[in-house]
Amino acid sequence: MEALEKLIVCLGKLPGIGRRSAERMATRLVREPDGLMRDLMAALHAARQHIQVCRCCGALTNDEQQPCRFCTNPSRDDTVLCVVEDPNDVAGIERSGAFNGRYHVLMGKLSPMKGEGLRHLRMQALLDRLDKEPVKEIILATSTDVEGDATASYVAEQLAARNVSISRLAFGLPVSSGIAYSDPVTLQRAIRGRNTY
Amino acid sequence: MEALEKLIVCLGKLPGIGRRSAERMATRLVREPDGLMRDLMAALHAARQHIQVCRCCGALTNDEQQPCRFCTNPSRDDTVLCVVEDPNDVAGIERSGAFNGRYHVLMGKLSPMKGEGLRHLRMQALLDRLDKEPVKEIILATSTDVEGDATASYVAEQLAARNVSISRLAFGLPVSSGIAYSDPVTLQRAIRGRNTY
Repeated sequence: MEALEKLIVCLGKLPGIGRRSAERMATRLVREPDGLMRDLMAALHAARQHIQVCRCCGALTNDEQQPCRFCTNPSRDDTVLCVVEDPNDVAGIERSGAFNGRYHVLMGKLSPMKGEGLRHLRMQALLDRLDKEPVKEIILATSTDVEGDATASYVAEQLAARNVSISRLAFGLPVSSGIAYSDPVTLQRAIRGRNTY
Repeated sequence: MEALEKLIVCLGKLPGIGRRSAERMATRLVREPDGLMRDLMAALHAARQHIQVCRCCGALTNDEQQPCRFCTNPSRDDTVLCVVEDPNDVAGIERSGAFNGRYHVLMGKLSPMKGEGLRHLRMQALLDRLDKEPVKEIILATSTDVEGDATASYVAEQLAARNVSISRLAFGLPVSSGIAYSDPVTLQRAIRGRNTY
């Protein structure tokens, strides 16, 4: 069944979805042509029509607002730029309420193991922004896995010659976690980064 | 962003997809409006147009072939019916090459814990088929988890008064597995079901 196979292959390209998951998803969809499948088609259509990527920072933006609300909001601090990997990360940091500067989304991270290199990162766009915008501080908010570490190092290196201060989010224990259940590397970093009372 | 939220909710209804996965999938899709998103929309459209559920057995069928090729193929054995939970299971059994009868898809299994009861199962359709078709043997090919066990028992009970022999797929060790790595319940069942040389 060619149409089913094509749907399975396509679903399998989504992040975190393997062949088995894609098969289950496809079967459920074709079983409900006038239910879940119709709803998904409508949702994709609406999302394609109404959501874009901000040409300046790379965050998601509504209904062709270019640049996005983060880039244009005059009450946000122009001098601090938070560098993240993915548009989802912007939403996470916004929920924290602890940041009121601008964003820059790299659209990925360095994954030498997967052959995903520098071309995918919006690094040149970041350098161009530093030429034009009054940025004094850059906060690297990449993920805390090996690729996120490599990405942070790479971005920091590229910015070394610029007149900006660069920091990275603190490592340590997440809130509401027990010591006994924390992984050794997190504990190491939490001990090294301990704060004096 | 309403359109994004709707897409996330919709993707989250797919089997095995939680909120986080749905967010990642949605973000990837809106990042590639003319790539992955366009391809997925086309694949869904084609699948909706070309694939249906067979009105007789519940397997997936191509291009409005009703009943499906399994139900109509004259070289298949009318007297044996294999009862499965999901259309995907039909494909699995076909790949084994060990069955040449007809199928009946229940479209689910008993999940008392999730509140999914008998209404979802195509049990009445199965009883109706037994009235009309020359079935002598029913093979229950439900999954081997608690729900699959409950489903098999339930179907067997419903068919007790009928003049058909009922069996269930054998429990035992999967091929290419080591004894040391097999779970205790599988080993118990493999020992109980041991075959004399």
